[in-house]
Amino acid sequence: MQPLPGFRDFYPEDLAFREAILCRWRSTARRYGFVEYDGPVLEPLELYRKKSGSEILEQVYQFADRGERLVAMRPEMTPTLVRMVQARHRDYRKPLKWFSIPQLYRYERAQRGRLREHFQWNCDILGEESLEADVEIISLLIDLLRGFGLGPEDFVVRVSDRGFWVRFFERHKVREEERYGLFQAIDKIERQPRETTEAALGSLAAPVFRLIDEGEPWEPVERVLASLSARGLSGFAEQDYRVVRGLAYYTGTVFEVFDRQGAFRAIAGGGRYDDLLERLGGERMPAVGFGMGDVVLGELLRAKQKLCASVARPELFVVISEEEVRPAAVRLVQSLRDQGFSVDYPLHAARPKKQWERAEAVGARHVLLADFRVMEGNAEVREVASRKSQVVSLAAIGSLLQSGGRERESGGGAPQS
Amino acid sequence: MQPLPGFRDFYPEDLAFREAILCRWRSTARRYGFVEYDGPVLEPLELYRKKSGSEILEQVYQFADRGERLVAMRPEMTPTLVRMVQARHRDYRKPLKWFSIPQLYRYERAQRGRLREHFQWNCDILGEESLEADVEIISLLIDLLRGFGLGPEDFVVRVSDRGFWVRFFERHKVREEERYGLFQAIDKIERQPRETTEAALGSLAAPVFRLIDEGEPWEPVERVLASLSARGLSGFAEQDYRVVRGLAYYTGTVFEVFDRQGAFRAIAGGGRYDDLLERLGGERMPAVGFGMGDVVLGELLRAKQKLCASVARPELFVVISEEEVRPAAVRLVQSLRDQGFSVDYPLHAARPKKQWERAEAVGARHVLLADFRVMEGNAEVREVASRKSQVVSLAAIGSLLQSGGRERESGGGAPQS
Repeated sequence: MQPLPGFRDFYPEDLAFREAILCRWRSTARRYGFVEYDGPVLEPLELYRKKSGSEILEQVYQFADRGERLVAMRPEMTPTLVRMVQARHRDYRKPLKWFSIPQLYRYERAQRGRLREHFQWNCDILGEESLEADVEIISLLIDLLRGFGLGPEDFVVRVSDRGFWVRFFERHKVREEERYGLFQAIDKIERQPRETTEAALGSLAAPVFRLIDEGEPWEPVERVLASLSARGLSGFAEQDYRVVRGLAYYTGTVFEVFDRQGAFRAIAGGGRYDDLLERLGGERMPAVGFGMGDVVLGELLRAKQKLCASVARPELFVVISEEEVRPAAVRLVQSLRDQGFSVDYPLHAARPKKQWERAEAVGARHVLLADFRVMEGNAEVREVASRKSQVVSLAAIGSLLQSGGRERESGGGAPQS
Repeated sequence: MQPLPGFRDFYPEDLAFREAILCRWRSTARRYGFVEYDGPVLEPLELYRKKSGSEILEQVYQFADRGERLVAMRPEMTPTLVRMVQARHRDYRKPLKWFSIPQLYRYERAQRGRLREHFQWNCDILGEESLEADVEIISLLIDLLRGFGLGPEDFVVRVSDRGFWVRFFERHKVREEERYGLFQAIDKIERQPRETTEAALGSLAAPVFRLIDEGEPWEPVERVLASLSARGLSGFAEQDYRVVRGLAYYTGTVFEVFDRQGAFRAIAGGGRYDDLLERLGGERMPAVGFGMGDVVLGELLRAKQKLCASVARPELFVVISEEEVRPAAVRLVQSLRDQGFSVDYPLHAARPKKQWERAEAVGARHVLLADFRVMEGNAEVREVASRKSQVVSLAAIGSLLQSGGRERESGGGAPQS
């Protein structure tokens, strides 16, 4: 039996890779003063009807539950965030700097490399009008990628502003209700043949292509880029008016992150959505945020060899050379675990050679040989990497492991870049 | 708009509590040499039809997806584990010691304190016949609870063995197909009036109640309890033949954990399921494991005041006293974040008093006053707890924060007991 198409099994080595990404997401968000939240995987379908674009609704996993409620598996996090903030924003001092790592679901047409679930790092600042919030959030995004050892030669943040196009539409007397369609056409400009885009844009095709090709200064974008430079982050971001974002609700700055070679889909995307909370029936609250998925990021990190995560390894494996010493060996195991060390041992009698193979297979950093000497309070401990062995008293094993780098309690496999 | 009934929003303070539990689950499993895996939230409904009891199937969230597949949101983890292990067990050396922390879903009747989702810590040892595996897994369970500061006066592991009842059924000539119903009746013995159980057990009621009340030695259970004692874990576990577990697939040792006062539902439960992999069409592989949910555990920890998790706090908050120094202040923020510190600052001009309030609200450990002195390369830093202030050079702030206890990169809020 297989997993459903588009869904992933995470075997220990896959999970270690996923956790290395999630760990880095968490620690980077915390360095920027963001706090973590989460919401339900299942939400009333109504929540997405009100807010998300029609493209999302076509892809949402939806059904009637046993209580005849129409429900949806969350396809994006922003509606949940908005619902939660509207319910309790008075309990928190503004601005909110919140992040979350939901797993999201979309029934996309089956294509190579397209999954139906992914983990997405969502970071948002709510209740802050200043453009400094846009800069803060883009800096966070850049720093996450920098933290993996990626540089300006690897990726670029393309920055634009919906306001730029709104002014353009006003100049060309485009009615409000036509604008969403035009944004969709501009959003797809790189993924579709030029003729398709020209047909969708109609008489606006020529001026749109001219603006994109030749550019035109636009103050908010210039200010964002200048502030990033002032932080020492120039080279990571560029003005690019092709970026408009597919979703309906953006109002200001919008941005997307791509690898420089253009080999992958967007790594991340986001922008400002100042009207959304009010449109959903709450108070007006300016907001800016982004989402970054684990799939495209993972592909990029693998391609650039920037992340080699490994499964957690025990500090010590206890080889039991004779069954007579098992009770003493197990007491030692228990005592070392009580001291916080990660310790493994064989659960049934086996030849020492078999046990050494097991120790190697689980990647133990040290191997302890429990033989008759254990009865006298001593044991031989070998450090696997250096192959150095020494006989130490059982009471001293804790400090021996400690000096060799105790496996500290931590929430995930240490990210390595 | 509310979350669906039975689903939880995790505001930052709720998430911190959840993460403190998940973090402890992870670190304890690692101390025992378990490695983490995960599977999909959505599985083919067929997977549960084959294995789970009918009670679970009645509660499963199921629907037909857009490709007309019958799918289910995972109500338990074991079927996914079995599916994954069957597909790739040859790639791993036995025994497998695997754990996972899935979110699980069941459409239970709405009752106070009953949710429709929870996080469940699943730990399993596969490919190990020895009773030592049962002891290892029960020790892990005990250690998790001990790690939170709970003692034998707070909880008990009730240990039993399906084999005990199987022998009883054989003695009384109960046919195989009648046994599942009898197990169900014994499983519910504490939750139903005695008459209901008596009716369900029929002529076996008297001998069943006699065995439960008076006990009878049964070697495998006695060996498990003796091994736990040898590890120094006596007092945490007791023989209790009422424990049989509702699920159909257990074959040997079964156990459940309850609080001593009997104020809560079961905290955890599990057992040996040696036939399941073979029954699902794979090779025979002995297995033992348990699940522990975050909801009952959380209630117990709150009641016993054994866990007070707090939202992650920044190491430093930078107060910008005049807008002239903002560029220099933001460069400083960026530089300290690059050094790995968690730093926050105001995103728009505000009176210093407002900024100090913000620093307090986010729980910053230090506050830096960025005023004219920043231009000269200095700043005043106050340690919030001690109220001690000192003027230091900007270059020295990193080491000042370091000595005050740098917020190390870690995967979750530090568990506190």
